[in-house]
Amino acid sequence: MTSASADFPAMVQVPEAELTSIVQRALARMGLSDAHVQAIAKVIVAGQRDACQSHGVYRLITCADAVRAGKVRLDAEPTVRATGSPIVQVDAQFGFSPLAFERGLPALVEATRRHGLGALVIRHCFHFSALWPEIEAITAHGLAALALTPSHAWVAPAGGSQPLFGTNPIAFGWPRPGPNPYVFDFATSAIARGDLELHRRAGQPLPEGCGVDADGEPSTDPVAVARGAMLAFGGHKGSALSTMVELMAGALIGDWTSRESLTFDDGAGVAPCHGELVLAFDPAAFADGDQATQTARAEQLLDSITAQGARLPSQRRFAAREASARQGIAVPVELWHDIMALADLPSDQGTPR
Amino acid sequence: MTSASADFPAMVQVPEAELTSIVQRALARMGLSDAHVQAIAKVIVAGQRDACQSHGVYRLITCADAVRAGKVRLDAEPTVRATGSPIVQVDAQFGFSPLAFERGLPALVEATRRHGLGALVIRHCFHFSALWPEIEAITAHGLAALALTPSHAWVAPAGGSQPLFGTNPIAFGWPRPGPNPYVFDFATSAIARGDLELHRRAGQPLPEGCGVDADGEPSTDPVAVARGAMLAFGGHKGSALSTMVELMAGALIGDWTSRESLTFDDGAGVAPCHGELVLAFDPAAFADGDQATQTARAEQLLDSITAQGARLPSQRRFAAREASARQGIAVPVELWHDIMALADLPSDQGTPR
Repeated sequence: MTSASADFPAMVQVPEAELTSIVQRALARMGLSDAHVQAIAKVIVAGQRDACQSHGVYRLITCADAVRAGKVRLDAEPTVRATGSPIVQVDAQFGFSPLAFERGLPALVEATRRHGLGALVIRHCFHFSALWPEIEAITAHGLAALALTPSHAWVAPAGGSQPLFGTNPIAFGWPRPGPNPYVFDFATSAIARGDLELHRRAGQPLPEGCGVDADGEPSTDPVAVARGAMLAFGGHKGSALSTMVELMAGALIGDWTSRESLTFDDGAGVAPCHGELVLAFDPAAFADGDQATQTARAEQLLDSITAQGARLPSQRRFAAREASARQGIAVPVELWHDIMALADLPSDQGTPR
Repeated sequence: MTSASADFPAMVQVPEAELTSIVQRALARMGLSDAHVQAIAKVIVAGQRDACQSHGVYRLITCADAVRAGKVRLDAEPTVRATGSPIVQVDAQFGFSPLAFERGLPALVEATRRHGLGALVIRHCFHFSALWPEIEAITAHGLAALALTPSHAWVAPAGGSQPLFGTNPIAFGWPRPGPNPYVFDFATSAIARGDLELHRRAGQPLPEGCGVDADGEPSTDPVAVARGAMLAFGGHKGSALSTMVELMAGALIGDWTSRESLTFDDGAGVAPCHGELVLAFDPAAFADGDQATQTARAEQLLDSITAQGARLPSQRRFAAREASARQGIAVPVELWHDIMALADLPSDQGTPR
């Protein structure tokens, strides 16, 4: 661990292996089984490594809250059903989602290679992670992927004012020749729930168009919007996509919609509990015998985006990842103290091992 | 045919069977084979029936232009490759797309029922139709569907200013118990290309955020935007979705991106030539043995949208469809004269048969 930098907020730089063991220790102290500890630590540390503050080690606090509320099964053993069809079904047994995804991934990859496309259905999981770690785990096998999941009912449909949809993220990935795939992962709400919380805590107004108050009137007051409803990005189009997420990653797969998840939460305020749908595509099966052209065409498209000065969706994340590999993973000092406390380690003395 | 109404623009009301035979006659006169005439007439008349002026009988003019440019094969016989895998591949042989879709549909439905999900890849088609007729043809079999297709490179990526993406529509459908499915079909550009043309012809400014001029500056001037670039809806999120469409319905399937399609067009200004990717999902295979709950959950979600006064994406279209069944299909008088001329029929005397 290097000392705090002069940046604001002050950061400590922690080597990845060290941060991982601290996060694992904190998770183990919550009573999670070793399999869950390993799987959750991996995605939380990956988020921090990529400078996604909202999906980094801060999520240890989300985990702790969910564990404290007593709904998550700490030692849930996900069951995988893979029958040779393109559809792989995992029951997370009301545990956290990362282990369920990990357990289903090999069967998804196999089904996709065999059939050209495959689907991974995860049911009954508590979900607090970003989707891009899952997408990247699939593109690492040379497959393309699309993932959808509901959340808690916080978002009103376009033209309405009552919360119905979750922030319902959509994530997509395409494998590229280099180390980094093309990946996007965004909420279909105009603003992420975490951003709403940040604005509320900072007492800052939201951008226009992010929400309505309890009377259905447009509002930029984060407190009023939290009592009213958030809005989808891009008007009726984003709202339609959010509906699709509820239908495909809720109704279709036989798991809860965002409203049912919020009802189940019953005021506990913890991570939503629902399902997830992940589709995977084997480029080889679609290429019509010419994967070289397929790859070249995709690369030309992506290069034409960056060549005109536009950014690819995960470019900033990949840059942070490189910096983390060189300098260690940056953790805001205040958060560092929090996670060291969760791990029951002294945070004011050298490097804990 | 009833007489023109007092509405503005003046309309003639034409029974569906009659409009179909006029459209078929016009298409046959262009030299299209009977199979293409039947398939194209069906989607064009369906568009007019649903009061989609931009995808109704007006498209006869688009067809005529494309035929005149000499690139479309008028008697192309699509070839279908269905090998028992979930992926059905159709080569449209450089004909118009509706026949290729029709020819591939039975194999897609069979593959989807067999495997739980399926993909229809169409290559080498000239595409001018909306995607919802295809989506509705799939939901009519009780399946859910997602369709993607590129177009011509008119849209700049978020943060850029050079045209690269097509208007790249995304369409989705979910089967419902009643006659009408849940369906959306929208361009990932902020405004449809047809709307840009309408604004240009009417000399009206575009809404904010639809495009940039040739210098990359935001502009509401339709002429300047046509020379510069259109923008995606919803900022970087819409731009990411548009990238996904190029990757999945271009690179993945081994067919042209929107830029290649525009290069092939080479100033002819006709319908784009490229491929299409359609995914289908059998709800029964995902329901985990409980389709009644699956349906009830979806219906409850959709009812919760309309119950709060919000509209479902295709509601207006379905209302027009009902009105057309009662009163005949409304065609603007000027357009009526145009299509009667294309069919070589007198448009100023009673009903032509």
